[in-house]
Amino acid sequence: MSIALRLPAEVSAAPSIRKPYLIFLADVQSRSFAKTAFGVRDWLPDETVGQWRMPTCAVDLDLPELSPAAAVAAGARSLLIGVAAPGGQIPAAWAPYLIEALHAGLDLVNGLHTRLSSVTEIAAAARAEGRALHDVRHADRPFPIGTGRKRSGKRALTVGTDCALGKKYTALALTRALKAAGIDATFRATGQTGIMIAGEGVAIDAVVSDFVAGAAESLSPDAAPDHWDIIEGQGALHHPAYAGVTLGLIHGSQPDALVLCHDPKRTHIDMYPWAPIPTLRDAISMNEACARVTNPKARVIAIALNTFGLSDADAQTAAARATEETGLPAFDPIRFGIERAVQALRAVS
Amino acid sequence: MSIALRLPAEVSAAPSIRKPYLIFLADVQSRSFAKTAFGVRDWLPDETVGQWRMPTCAVDLDLPELSPAAAVAAGARSLLIGVAAPGGQIPAAWAPYLIEALHAGLDLVNGLHTRLSSVTEIAAAARAEGRALHDVRHADRPFPIGTGRKRSGKRALTVGTDCALGKKYTALALTRALKAAGIDATFRATGQTGIMIAGEGVAIDAVVSDFVAGAAESLSPDAAPDHWDIIEGQGALHHPAYAGVTLGLIHGSQPDALVLCHDPKRTHIDMYPWAPIPTLRDAISMNEACARVTNPKARVIAIALNTFGLSDADAQTAAARATEETGLPAFDPIRFGIERAVQALRAVS
Repeated sequence: MSIALRLPAEVSAAPSIRKPYLIFLADVQSRSFAKTAFGVRDWLPDETVGQWRMPTCAVDLDLPELSPAAAVAAGARSLLIGVAAPGGQIPAAWAPYLIEALHAGLDLVNGLHTRLSSVTEIAAAARAEGRALHDVRHADRPFPIGTGRKRSGKRALTVGTDCALGKKYTALALTRALKAAGIDATFRATGQTGIMIAGEGVAIDAVVSDFVAGAAESLSPDAAPDHWDIIEGQGALHHPAYAGVTLGLIHGSQPDALVLCHDPKRTHIDMYPWAPIPTLRDAISMNEACARVTNPKARVIAIALNTFGLSDADAQTAAARATEETGLPAFDPIRFGIERAVQALRAVS
Repeated sequence: MSIALRLPAEVSAAPSIRKPYLIFLADVQSRSFAKTAFGVRDWLPDETVGQWRMPTCAVDLDLPELSPAAAVAAGARSLLIGVAAPGGQIPAAWAPYLIEALHAGLDLVNGLHTRLSSVTEIAAAARAEGRALHDVRHADRPFPIGTGRKRSGKRALTVGTDCALGKKYTALALTRALKAAGIDATFRATGQTGIMIAGEGVAIDAVVSDFVAGAAESLSPDAAPDHWDIIEGQGALHHPAYAGVTLGLIHGSQPDALVLCHDPKRTHIDMYPWAPIPTLRDAISMNEACARVTNPKARVIAIALNTFGLSDADAQTAAARATEETGLPAFDPIRFGIERAVQALRAVS
């Protein structure tokens, strides 16, 4: 790290995304390509006015079928591309639809790899109409170098024994439960779908590695002493490809509390059959050791299990086993609710 | 991590830098702005034909004073900008010199933040002459996602209790000592000066965080079973800003052996007075725990001390103390040589 040569990064805030959304399902044939659409619908029922589909689309969100013009009349401010396309490109057949939305007065929100601004006709229409194009998969704006300075307010971060086992869901559910309990809390998004739900955030895995901790610091600024930032985790410290992202996020987040997400059915890191899933104890020990570099009080306070596919009895057994191994409350937030994590957070001083 | 949406990155090799070098010292007034120049001179005595200075320059490398044309006649292939400029920019007064070098037939090698190609006249001259512009501070080419697949050959990585305490020097010295002992070894560069010395490498802290482990994997490909890759470390796992870079580099490097670099005079992370330097034991334990995610045999085999400013007696005492604390060989590679690390590497099966 050649600190002496490093430019002071010019730091700017990301523009916030305007809601409510009209969700674009394009021409996809399968739910598995529409995870973002379902996530946004489920977490933003009051800020999703409807769906818009091409004639051959086979997926249905059970939302009102609206054209962009009708959606604008119903209050929509942005068209959200709720689906993935093979290869991450924007298919040419979608462009006329996206341009119609711009003409109708909607901004565009895109989680695909291809930037909206790289499609000439879309960029031109947005410019002509004065509309914003949000490419939430990218994190182009400059971020500061991490300072390690302790910020005010309280922070919880979801971590995991692997990717894709419920870190976003757990953070969203925890935020909602805290608010329901009268506790001031903010969900902080670090991935595409999370950013679409929150309307802001940082795609942390797209940040240049030197700035990940600094980007994470900027995501949860100083707050009131009793306020909780609930930060969406990414990756896993035991993941062969993404652990560096996870560690920078942990350091910059300075979490007082960590919620460890775990899928008891997995034996190895997803798509890395030679990489075993760590034991809960090992995962707790490594996450706590790392988090204490920037917050000596950091500790894992609960285990959130992903028991999808297990019977209720087997899920209960898995939770009992996790508690036995760790001494911590363990539960599936979808199946059993997240109240025990709320209780554990209340106990954090 | 939305793996399903991730594009398979198109991977290309970085173009190698052509040596020998003519070192450009520009108009700098102080050695502290010419660290790169001294590093390259010291480590590449046979591939540095001379120095070139503007009339007001106050720094001297004790190398032959050569114009670009004379340097080309002496075999030079690239002009290396060996100095830093305040703010990382390329001062306008340097441009005519850089353009003269291009016209004389030299490529340009630049470690400043500003890209050579962003200076219109330089870009035009390089295009006209068919010369290469190397901006080693950047890592623009695409890298693969880390696979975690175990590669053949042996690897050592330098790690540290902080930044800027000898990780590059130790890796270079170890490579040289291994070669002198008849052991096949390659220095693998991960920072600007290292890349200028090696002629290739990856500025790992400039890689997008999701790809750091993959970039590190590509840096030390499969090799002969007895070959050692000696990889230049970056940052520190206990560093509040850069630990994510370090962890991705550790995971992708899959080191069999780690050499822990440490400055016994430091009490806190440089420029982070609230962040204590870890004990050697804590640093060993965290580095080994992290490295074993991708190589279960990884272990710290030696402590390289930076005892600059201590008396010989105090340096010996510091080494004895480090050995007492860790049970490992400890030495200052500058003061006492690095033979004990070579011996320790020989013992790695």
